[in-house]
Amino acid sequence: MKKLNIGLIGYGFMGRAHSNAYLSVGRFFDLKYQPVLKAVAARNPEKIKQFADKWEFQSYHDDWRQLVNDAEIDVVDIASPNDTHAEIAIAAAQAGKMILCEKPLARNLQEAQRMVDAAQKAGVRTMVWYNYRRIPAVAFARQLIASGKLGRIFHYRAKFLQDWTMSPDLPQGGAALWRLDADVAGSGVTGDLLAHCIDTAIWLNGEMDSVSAMTEIFIKERKHNLTGKTEKIGIEDASAFLARFKNGSLATFEATRFARGHKALYTLEVNGQNGSLAWDLHDLHRLQWFDHRDEGVLRGWRSVHVTDGDHPYMANWWVPGLAIGYEHSFIHQVADFVNSIDEKAPAEPTFESAMQTEKVVHAVLESAQSGKWEKAS
Amino acid sequence: MKKLNIGLIGYGFMGRAHSNAYLSVGRFFDLKYQPVLKAVAARNPEKIKQFADKWEFQSYHDDWRQLVNDAEIDVVDIASPNDTHAEIAIAAAQAGKMILCEKPLARNLQEAQRMVDAAQKAGVRTMVWYNYRRIPAVAFARQLIASGKLGRIFHYRAKFLQDWTMSPDLPQGGAALWRLDADVAGSGVTGDLLAHCIDTAIWLNGEMDSVSAMTEIFIKERKHNLTGKTEKIGIEDASAFLARFKNGSLATFEATRFARGHKALYTLEVNGQNGSLAWDLHDLHRLQWFDHRDEGVLRGWRSVHVTDGDHPYMANWWVPGLAIGYEHSFIHQVADFVNSIDEKAPAEPTFESAMQTEKVVHAVLESAQSGKWEKAS
Amino acid sequence: MKKLNIGLIGYGFMGRAHSNAYLSVGRFFDLKYQPVLKAVAARNPEKIKQFADKWEFQSYHDDWRQLVNDAEIDVVDIASPNDTHAEIAIAAAQAGKMILCEKPLARNLQEAQRMVDAAQKAGVRTMVWYNYRRIPAVAFARQLIASGKLGRIFHYRAKFLQDWTMSPDLPQGGAALWRLDADVAGSGVTGDLLAHCIDTAIWLNGEMDSVSAMTEIFIKERKHNLTGKTEKIGIEDASAFLARFKNGSLATFEATRFARGHKALYTLEVNGQNGSLAWDLHDLHRLQWFDHRDEGVLRGWRSVHVTDGDHPYMANWWVPGLAIGYEHSFIHQVADFVNSIDEKAPAEPTFESAMQTEKVVHAVLESAQSGKWEKAS
Amino acid sequence: MKKLNIGLIGYGFMGRAHSNAYLSVGRFFDLKYQPVLKAVAARNPEKIKQFADKWEFQSYHDDWRQLVNDAEIDVVDIASPNDTHAEIAIAAAQAGKMILCEKPLARNLQEAQRMVDAAQKAGVRTMVWYNYRRIPAVAFARQLIASGKLGRIFHYRAKFLQDWTMSPDLPQGGAALWRLDADVAGSGVTGDLLAHCIDTAIWLNGEMDSVSAMTEIFIKERKHNLTGKTEKIGIEDASAFLARFKNGSLATFEATRFARGHKALYTLEVNGQNGSLAWDLHDLHRLQWFDHRDEGVLRGWRSVHVTDGDHPYMANWWVPGLAIGYEHSFIHQVADFVNSIDEKAPAEPTFESAMQTEKVVHAVLESAQSGKWEKAS
Repeated sequence: MKKLNIGLIGYGFMGRAHSNAYLSVGRFFDLKYQPVLKAVAARNPEKIKQFADKWEFQSYHDDWRQLVNDAEIDVVDIASPNDTHAEIAIAAAQAGKMILCEKPLARNLQEAQRMVDAAQKAGVRTMVWYNYRRIPAVAFARQLIASGKLGRIFHYRAKFLQDWTMSPDLPQGGAALWRLDADVAGSGVTGDLLAHCIDTAIWLNGEMDSVSAMTEIFIKERKHNLTGKTEKIGIEDASAFLARFKNGSLATFEATRFARGHKALYTLEVNGQNGSLAWDLHDLHRLQWFDHRDEGVLRGWRSVHVTDGDHPYMANWWVPGLAIGYEHSFIHQVADFVNSIDEKAPAEPTFESAMQTEKVVHAVLESAQSGKWEKAS
Repeated sequence: MKKLNIGLIGYGFMGRAHSNAYLSVGRFFDLKYQPVLKAVAARNPEKIKQFADKWEFQSYHDDWRQLVNDAEIDVVDIASPNDTHAEIAIAAAQAGKMILCEKPLARNLQEAQRMVDAAQKAGVRTMVWYNYRRIPAVAFARQLIASGKLGRIFHYRAKFLQDWTMSPDLPQGGAALWRLDADVAGSGVTGDLLAHCIDTAIWLNGEMDSVSAMTEIFIKERKHNLTGKTEKIGIEDASAFLARFKNGSLATFEATRFARGHKALYTLEVNGQNGSLAWDLHDLHRLQWFDHRDEGVLRGWRSVHVTDGDHPYMANWWVPGLAIGYEHSFIHQVADFVNSIDEKAPAEPTFESAMQTEKVVHAVLESAQSGKWEKAS
Repeated sequence: MKKLNIGLIGYGFMGRAHSNAYLSVGRFFDLKYQPVLKAVAARNPEKIKQFADKWEFQSYHDDWRQLVNDAEIDVVDIASPNDTHAEIAIAAAQAGKMILCEKPLARNLQEAQRMVDAAQKAGVRTMVWYNYRRIPAVAFARQLIASGKLGRIFHYRAKFLQDWTMSPDLPQGGAALWRLDADVAGSGVTGDLLAHCIDTAIWLNGEMDSVSAMTEIFIKERKHNLTGKTEKIGIEDASAFLARFKNGSLATFEATRFARGHKALYTLEVNGQNGSLAWDLHDLHRLQWFDHRDEGVLRGWRSVHVTDGDHPYMANWWVPGLAIGYEHSFIHQVADFVNSIDEKAPAEPTFESAMQTEKVVHAVLESAQSGKWEKAS
Repeated sequence: MKKLNIGLIGYGFMGRAHSNAYLSVGRFFDLKYQPVLKAVAARNPEKIKQFADKWEFQSYHDDWRQLVNDAEIDVVDIASPNDTHAEIAIAAAQAGKMILCEKPLARNLQEAQRMVDAAQKAGVRTMVWYNYRRIPAVAFARQLIASGKLGRIFHYRAKFLQDWTMSPDLPQGGAALWRLDADVAGSGVTGDLLAHCIDTAIWLNGEMDSVSAMTEIFIKERKHNLTGKTEKIGIEDASAFLARFKNGSLATFEATRFARGHKALYTLEVNGQNGSLAWDLHDLHRLQWFDHRDEGVLRGWRSVHVTDGDHPYMANWWVPGLAIGYEHSFIHQVADFVNSIDEKAPAEPTFESAMQTEKVVHAVLESAQSGKWEKAS
């Protein structure tokens, strides 16, 4: 089988998830290219060596430029903090590499646009790691909607609720907590969590027309890990918005890190003329389904255990009733990417299509400032 | 409308539930007879007066014989402890009254048989308060099974789990705790809780052939409220049995008062060739339904909110989505009884049909002693 | 016991719920006044006679003025459509009656204010039937929040989802469908459903500062039952809004009659510093509770079956584990009202306090027009 | 790091699960030995080559004896059908290999005893793949019970419900369906499914004293894939039993392949004096927990999402809220085995401790024949 040489940048949570996906995918999926862990790069020389050893990368670098400029690398995979995405992606495009990039695409719309432009100019394949599209239950939801089973869509709702930053003693910044540092992250829950909700929503329900949003910083100052001083917090703890989709449906979206009792509760629900569906990340192997065409007295929400062989991706795993987990969404995304390389249609979302999500994120942050409805596409 | 004069014996938990049913039923159901709270009887003169006042009974007695012999009484309703059922029922039969009796029919099979004989000899209408048959979701389960939707039945399971007697400091006996006094109750959880499970099971799945059982008394002695002394406990805290139904299906049954965390968790599940259903008393307004004929990828347990107008009994209540509660099962039973009086087919279960449950209860207690399978019908 | 003579106006869904409450309350609660079904009034002479017979009202009228001017009536209970509230309430106030009124208080803020003014001028007791406050689980939620167990509140969310008007063939107007007729109802789901959510929210979390809303009419025209012609629909099918509470918490609210699969799914969730709670009307006997002070590894959402004797109102009902239903919220409200009559503090919400909800409803409808944030108090 | 050379026999469902575990474990766990996929063996030369390629085994054999006698192999892992376990295990013991064996240990008690004897004689390390012990929620249940949090145990219940053999058209025998062939499997659901339930039960609640069981074959004949003829079915479709544990608690167990609507629903519940817990395989990342020491009004079953860093095994995976799946239980078991090699205490269950489960399986099958209670240890 042909090899696909991966160059990974970043060794954090996402670095592990991607590495695991590259290593596992070939055992469970028929691939046209076998990913190879060719090189990994990050700033901390000691940590990157440890990581490379653990995951058996063939080489490692403390400067991502070395990796990007390595002629043997086919794919540059950007799993480093948001403030590095644009620079790396543009360099990778210029080097003619395929580019995989963690979400959100960038810290803001301008950066993201530059990335898209560079990739288009270079004519390279791109993909953004909106991994939740590849949870089997979510992919199945997409199939149901695309098949017309729900009919006209009236409502969409999504939330992403966490509670991990509620302590005022939690500092900001540095390797572990860059998500709380506005300079690095760009935005708070809007780019981090809502971006996932928005990506899925657009995939399932089409583009949004306009939004009205509010954001809030509940804890205004935190110690900064890099400066050691208490500094103002620049990223929002909570973000919620109303939306009108172009198909005429209404939506509510919300993300927060201040919802006590929820760890990573990404939920979505879609209500259509003939049926409705709902899903949540805490029980990611289930899809809730309501079919109005069921016999009247027997109508009810069905809890579908999305583990059968005819559910998306599941024929590649175990037997009905046995669940897979979070990490498998990355494996599926690698499988789809690898097998799309020689196809005309790219694996989605590309940088270009991810711009739709970036535009909504931008509109949400704008609306929270302006107090007005803002165009979202 | 014609009146139906009720004479109630007992003013406890069941006395209240029955009285409420008689008073409410006419507001919500079209009746052929309007129940009238004619008289109530119990031993404690002060308490029975209070109760009669509260519920506006027209008269009260401290001797049930006065009530049974009152010519104006049409129906004698026995809601007093188990040790009184046989004597009152036989007297009521001899007085030519219709008889409603709380479950279990009696303390043991012999007493129950005498009650059946007396009622048959007198030719009077009878009914036993196995009220759970009239929970809409349970009545709906019966409709589904009777319609053949499940096909051949393979499995039946039922449990009734409580935890209210777990403290060793809880005494036995007296007005409040007669259920722990073997002389009064006859048996423990077998007659009190399993009897409900068995009645529903026979109604849904037909007669049982044989059972293998075990029982246990976890706390062997408790203070007796009547003697003031610590006395041996004669009733079982827990009872479980395997059963084979005559239709070839297998079953497990269990009841206990030592299942920490469960208040009154009566659950049942039926697995058939084409479908399965499940129900529990803690969420009594829902029926879980699985239909194998659903499209493969969309199969899942449906949570049916049994509150629509075309669900059993529900057209008489509110609007879809709005739940009724426990007490309504008694109202439904009164409605069914009252409207059956002039019909050939009696409202079920009559004393005679309740004997099937008594026989299983008897076989369970026998098997727990013998260590063998015992015939159950 | 002293009597309290009730004069009810309206015999629909709410007329039944109120009548049942008056009749039942005295059996289960200790009352200072016993409600008496003195008179009932409505326009249709035949139907009101039937209703009066069924519920044993002592008299009936086809003109509500007769009832309001009857010297024997103590309480005028308005359960007729929204367009009648103001006129009746003002007349009742002028006649010196206590007034109970169905929600929403009126069709719009102006009417509502006139009702408040009239009641204040007359110095009469008032109460609005926001019955969901008296669901035991909701009343318990209030106790928990008031006790400080949740700490500072960060988020509130509520939804009221239905699907009963989704068919374009459903007409508007007339006795059964006045809720779809703008002239009668005033607004659509905002006044009908969101008003409930708003009332509970203010009760649990205090006043709102401002809102940003959107509304939609999915089906623009329906046949009108009174004219027989297809006419424009004036009431909104869906309504959603963002809110900021005065305590600094953020909220999302949504109501719709186009959420396929939901009958009357009123849900609420509150996230605080130390704990969170959630409730829904489809399983109204449960409160979901998360306590951050639980031991770390054992933290989880608790499903509390709100049926114990020490839960609000439940000592008056059955035994732990046995659920009550929707109708009981009205019984509780009557109990609270009746026992407040001789107290300084009125049973809530009075007309005056219900104005807070009216103001939010008004602001929501305004914001949906203006596209801006509007002040809500 | 030291290497541990694995020789795997079998390439089916379990062969994949084990291979994946060996490959993944070192990325997520700190190991004392790194497993190496040295060799794999199975009868079908073509398939075993394909499998070896896919999983990158260093060599493959079509005769397991070659593998067992390969001096470089440290561990023989038996993932082939039940009828091969004894012969292979005994040969592996004689060759001085560590032995890992799929469950059930053997087709019957006699075979199992010979395996234990051989391993003891050879003094080799052994382990049986009762993988469900290593689901984090189940391991956590064990910690809770061991810590005394539940207090005295009164009840244990377990079920394993499937529906995959309900069609009479499903044949028996051959590579895919050996579980329906009595000669190969030994028993039906008792050895296949109940064995899992029994293993966990003994681990959590200690040994059983005695059992009373029933079994049933619902479909008596099926076409045999090897002979092409319709042949009698020798394995039971359903098996249920009552049990008394040595600690005085009572239990019910049931397994079936005829429970329509359940794919692999292994459930367990334990009721103790102070608390109860429940778990099911369909939502394997959750543990239900009830604590009687919670404040009275706030008692409820907690749904614990067992994904926090301080839950068993979870610090090695992702972040709180993100679930792992079925396959991870095998990874955990490999980690435990590998890290126990140099320790005195072996990773459980060894062949010897798995004999407790074999004895219960034996007693269940005996009791189903005898109709009597049988000793289970």
